[in-house]
Amino acid sequence: MNTFGNMFRVTIFGESHGPAIGAVVDGTPAGTRIDLEAIQREMNRRAPGRAALSTPRQEADVPEILSGMGENGVATGAPITCVIRNHDARPQDYPSAFRPGHADWPAFVKYGGHADRRGGGRFSGRLTAGLVFAGAIAKTVLAARGIEVFGRIKSISNAYDNIEMCGENAASREELRRIAAKIFPAADNKENDFLDHIAWAKEENDSVGGVVEAVCFGVPAGAGEPFFSSMESRIASMVFSIPAIKGVEFGRGFEITTMRGREANDPLVLTESTITTRTNNNGGVLGGIANGMPVIVRAAIKPTSSISIPQQTIDPATGAETTLALGGRHDPCIAPRAVPVVEAGVAIAVLDLIMEGGLY
Amino acid sequence: MNTFGNMFRVTIFGESHGPAIGAVVDGTPAGTRIDLEAIQREMNRRAPGRAALSTPRQEADVPEILSGMGENGVATGAPITCVIRNHDARPQDYPSAFRPGHADWPAFVKYGGHADRRGGGRFSGRLTAGLVFAGAIAKTVLAARGIEVFGRIKSISNAYDNIEMCGENAASREELRRIAAKIFPAADNKENDFLDHIAWAKEENDSVGGVVEAVCFGVPAGAGEPFFSSMESRIASMVFSIPAIKGVEFGRGFEITTMRGREANDPLVLTESTITTRTNNNGGVLGGIANGMPVIVRAAIKPTSSISIPQQTIDPATGAETTLALGGRHDPCIAPRAVPVVEAGVAIAVLDLIMEGGLY
Amino acid sequence: MNTFGNMFRVTIFGESHGPAIGAVVDGTPAGTRIDLEAIQREMNRRAPGRAALSTPRQEADVPEILSGMGENGVATGAPITCVIRNHDARPQDYPSAFRPGHADWPAFVKYGGHADRRGGGRFSGRLTAGLVFAGAIAKTVLAARGIEVFGRIKSISNAYDNIEMCGENAASREELRRIAAKIFPAADNKENDFLDHIAWAKEENDSVGGVVEAVCFGVPAGAGEPFFSSMESRIASMVFSIPAIKGVEFGRGFEITTMRGREANDPLVLTESTITTRTNNNGGVLGGIANGMPVIVRAAIKPTSSISIPQQTIDPATGAETTLALGGRHDPCIAPRAVPVVEAGVAIAVLDLIMEGGLY
Amino acid sequence: MNTFGNMFRVTIFGESHGPAIGAVVDGTPAGTRIDLEAIQREMNRRAPGRAALSTPRQEADVPEILSGMGENGVATGAPITCVIRNHDARPQDYPSAFRPGHADWPAFVKYGGHADRRGGGRFSGRLTAGLVFAGAIAKTVLAARGIEVFGRIKSISNAYDNIEMCGENAASREELRRIAAKIFPAADNKENDFLDHIAWAKEENDSVGGVVEAVCFGVPAGAGEPFFSSMESRIASMVFSIPAIKGVEFGRGFEITTMRGREANDPLVLTESTITTRTNNNGGVLGGIANGMPVIVRAAIKPTSSISIPQQTIDPATGAETTLALGGRHDPCIAPRAVPVVEAGVAIAVLDLIMEGGLY
Repeated sequence: MNTFGNMFRVTIFGESHGPAIGAVVDGTPAGTRIDLEAIQREMNRRAPGRAALSTPRQEADVPEILSGMGENGVATGAPITCVIRNHDARPQDYPSAFRPGHADWPAFVKYGGHADRRGGGRFSGRLTAGLVFAGAIAKTVLAARGIEVFGRIKSISNAYDNIEMCGENAASREELRRIAAKIFPAADNKENDFLDHIAWAKEENDSVGGVVEAVCFGVPAGAGEPFFSSMESRIASMVFSIPAIKGVEFGRGFEITTMRGREANDPLVLTESTITTRTNNNGGVLGGIANGMPVIVRAAIKPTSSISIPQQTIDPATGAETTLALGGRHDPCIAPRAVPVVEAGVAIAVLDLIMEGGLY
Repeated sequence: MNTFGNMFRVTIFGESHGPAIGAVVDGTPAGTRIDLEAIQREMNRRAPGRAALSTPRQEADVPEILSGMGENGVATGAPITCVIRNHDARPQDYPSAFRPGHADWPAFVKYGGHADRRGGGRFSGRLTAGLVFAGAIAKTVLAARGIEVFGRIKSISNAYDNIEMCGENAASREELRRIAAKIFPAADNKENDFLDHIAWAKEENDSVGGVVEAVCFGVPAGAGEPFFSSMESRIASMVFSIPAIKGVEFGRGFEITTMRGREANDPLVLTESTITTRTNNNGGVLGGIANGMPVIVRAAIKPTSSISIPQQTIDPATGAETTLALGGRHDPCIAPRAVPVVEAGVAIAVLDLIMEGGLY
Repeated sequence: MNTFGNMFRVTIFGESHGPAIGAVVDGTPAGTRIDLEAIQREMNRRAPGRAALSTPRQEADVPEILSGMGENGVATGAPITCVIRNHDARPQDYPSAFRPGHADWPAFVKYGGHADRRGGGRFSGRLTAGLVFAGAIAKTVLAARGIEVFGRIKSISNAYDNIEMCGENAASREELRRIAAKIFPAADNKENDFLDHIAWAKEENDSVGGVVEAVCFGVPAGAGEPFFSSMESRIASMVFSIPAIKGVEFGRGFEITTMRGREANDPLVLTESTITTRTNNNGGVLGGIANGMPVIVRAAIKPTSSISIPQQTIDPATGAETTLALGGRHDPCIAPRAVPVVEAGVAIAVLDLIMEGGLY
Repeated sequence: MNTFGNMFRVTIFGESHGPAIGAVVDGTPAGTRIDLEAIQREMNRRAPGRAALSTPRQEADVPEILSGMGENGVATGAPITCVIRNHDARPQDYPSAFRPGHADWPAFVKYGGHADRRGGGRFSGRLTAGLVFAGAIAKTVLAARGIEVFGRIKSISNAYDNIEMCGENAASREELRRIAAKIFPAADNKENDFLDHIAWAKEENDSVGGVVEAVCFGVPAGAGEPFFSSMESRIASMVFSIPAIKGVEFGRGFEITTMRGREANDPLVLTESTITTRTNNNGGVLGGIANGMPVIVRAAIKPTSSISIPQQTIDPATGAETTLALGGRHDPCIAPRAVPVVEAGVAIAVLDLIMEGGLY
């Protein structure tokens, strides 16, 4: 349902145009220093209205913490609850007809017409603000063990960056940290290309998709369980919960199916008396278990469903086919804002598994 | 850990070269007729030594049912337990050095050297026989509601079939049923091409990967939950637990990132007074909820890790680098045998979610 | 951790003297009419400062609903979140020394000294306000199926009421409904006796315990699962989470150990062509499964730990033994306020199991 | 359903008169030495036909281990699966009419008549053999940390032993270890009294109940979580899953409701520079968290439901009322055989919580 995790457990709540959204974060080790500024930085990375081409919805997204943090700014061990008020709710912006590409129609079936359809309600990307909050807590806890996750835009439409993470000349942790911190988190030499694709889509009242890559450094070898709690199972389970994601892959991902075994198998080598692999085609996970190499995750983000071009659909008020051109101004590409969300998802899932494995 | 599902719950156990493997399947509705022949057919589809180019390990894989089935062949409502004995265990076939691409090294870290390394032990693909058993039960239960899942080899190396499931001229349920039932479950006009790729790899003592596509027909609209129990989250969580899978995608998957919104959004239409979508780029799932269209899942299977070509690795007995060429005869491509396993995973996850949603 | 339930799932949060407490309630069927007045009535039954001898802490306990309820007052299917602000927080009331009978000492070990100790922090009975909110939602959902739960004070100290629920002349649903609705929910002819015991304890700056009995009518036969999800397991698991409870029993409970089999076995009879039992010594549950008779639960509430009498303890500031007499005014008996909490716990657990069994 | 635990996870399966029963035990730390003789001793303590007055059903109850144990007798980290064959199954012994006090009737409703009714099927006490196996593993793991659990018969009918565990003169760990190891695990000076009660019931073709007390020594302070994962919640959840148990209490249990706060609060004292409590009225748990004192659990076992005295019931074959006198010879009191089962339940729940709290 709306709770994820066994040891580090996140419950999210809220609806796009209700009073508030938020999260309850259970399992933060007592004594963890909660850095409110770091949390706010993460919230801002996801918040709408920030980058040049983003949705114009304005939300400060300042979380109010209701529990779990002592007066000295330290986690008490109790669940950390945050509430983020919805200020810029505009229910009247939303149409009667089912929006193609959105959950309007299956939600209508599921909730018997009672679902809050304003802005996608429960299905809105706005809900991911709670995930980002929880992810910021997870990142703080992970950082104390030297574990960090950095995301970036890997591609927009058919433009891909050429940063290589699986081969012998993988980008460094420092380089990825720098890129992830950019307002538009993309490789320097691809930034303009990506922005062009987004601008072209926007001009046509259309939208465009992309791929987000997140790399998690420092995951201890041995984290994860065989089969149902594999690193891949748990990370994918979390990342697929983020709206608009249609694919998740690790290491070489789908590309590995075109390789031969002798290319795909990562040779084991001794690096300063530690066992590592020369390449990382398996993305840091073998048999579901972390092998100590960076965990490499990619997520496919579909083009924003909300577009102003007329589309064929059904209006439940009439039961008849109709066309619908969405009013309002929409984010022509959500990949940039999805970067901190995917990072948060990876951080939450990795921390949960590390704790479960007794490795924290 | 080794248990999956909330309402339809599967626990698998065993090690490749221990006495037996098996599964405990909880949640089968009392009164379900257990068709032992249908179960055996599914077991045979996965069993080694069946297709021309498969691993020569010979296992009858006849499940003994220890509980949950009455004398009349009907489910009693108690957990259905099956045990499959390991007959062709050859522990001496396995080397001391960590096999590249296998879980040997992270398992060594995780279990402090106590893991049963014979044949991959807990991490062996042999464990998937328990999944296939559980999947056969799930398929029986689903079939009573008109829900069926059919898998096939979508690609081997860089050869892809041209069966289209997301566009307007999708293959029919009947066509996919026919292909799935083949000994080598591939489109007729691609079968030889795929077999050639496998044969080439085998000749070179190498291996090759592929993509398996499973399509689930009849999933009721409204199944699945937003966010953490989305159809995609739960199916991916299950499918990623299958060894050797490095990517999972739904509908157009990663390809959707190169589409524009107006192409990717599936228009809603009335078909015989039912709401459907003209295309199925979203693979039957919107916002995590089934929309009534076929659920389309693809899984990337990496080339078999076990190859006879010498590879660089570490031997824990010496702590030093060494090279390793695996003896024994290995399956040069596991994609064909992965087809029934992916089907089983999809069936289990879908049934669990349908039950959880009160839709069974 | 802080989440209970599979299908009807409750997460509670907050600390006694933090900004707020609350609950996230997941699984309420879309379309359920949320009766805010009924919720407030339940909150008031538990709230401090209401009955003559209760704690003087004043809290309005008005829940603010942040999500899950549409503008028309109907559940949308999304999690229902409530926040209850702490207004009368007085952190300075609380001592440095570990309070005997409280969780201060084990919490100090568990959270390394970081726990919010003000007013018991996470361990405070105040947290049960979130449970009562969730229970009010559960009761609303259950009532639509004719299922109701009524609690009352069964005993205070060694004074017991003589209402019989397990024998042939059990009190009626109407009678129990009437008693449960009283400000002091006790049998009429025992009310004064119970109040006397509480007054005597209060005069001596001491406290006294009691037993709460909750009876759930209308539970459908077949609810519950064998073994780990038995009705008793799940209800007891929930009820034991309520602070100060040291025992839970069903039907005759511990008394049944002094009966013979021929007395304890409830004879099956036909009542208006329905199978019922003549007696209800098993409290409506056989083999973990509801048999259609009222489910009878009793919970032992220990005497309030906070008393003004000097007690021996340890002060972590000095590490030495000391004596502690708690300042402030304390509730000399929490059994009366525990009545709606136990009811809430039973309602939540029963609803969850009914949903899980597909019986809703 | 049939799986318990998060970190130490037990799945049980089987039916009384099916081919076999058993358990899958997940989470045993790799490297744990599995002492097959110790396991068999535990199995024998529970097995029928052992003590003078027990059921005459003869079952060797020798578990076959199918997975999780290496050739050197050490846990591999994989799930440990055991199968116990049913040899003395006599399906024809069982009647058509619903047996009063048994789950026959609610199981008939739940499983639509498909339940295996032979010998109680899924609801049989025989299933607890799997629990005892899992408990033996848990005990082995706990013993490595100095944690031990010892059970005994506290009472039969209205005869109680006078061993005091909650006051200042509690029995020692050694004394309880000695009693638990007896064939009839009862205080020496009560053994004959208890046996007399059982013999009297047996003579009259009747049965009698009793109370089992289990004491767990060495539980580290800080184990358990507030609210839903409290020590009491989790232990009670497990213990209530054992058939025939109608009450569970901790420390003084229901008796504490008749005490005053000044008596019930356990004073904190320094014992060899460790914080302990002088008395243990709270049974080692405060606010759901272990305080380092022995954890004291008592379970009420109802008189055996199967008796040869004619009882009123319904026969589903006719739908009419009838009388039923059970043939066969039945255990007139199951409390003695319940001792190792309750111990097992406590061991499993405690180990799971200790692991979850990162205290293992």
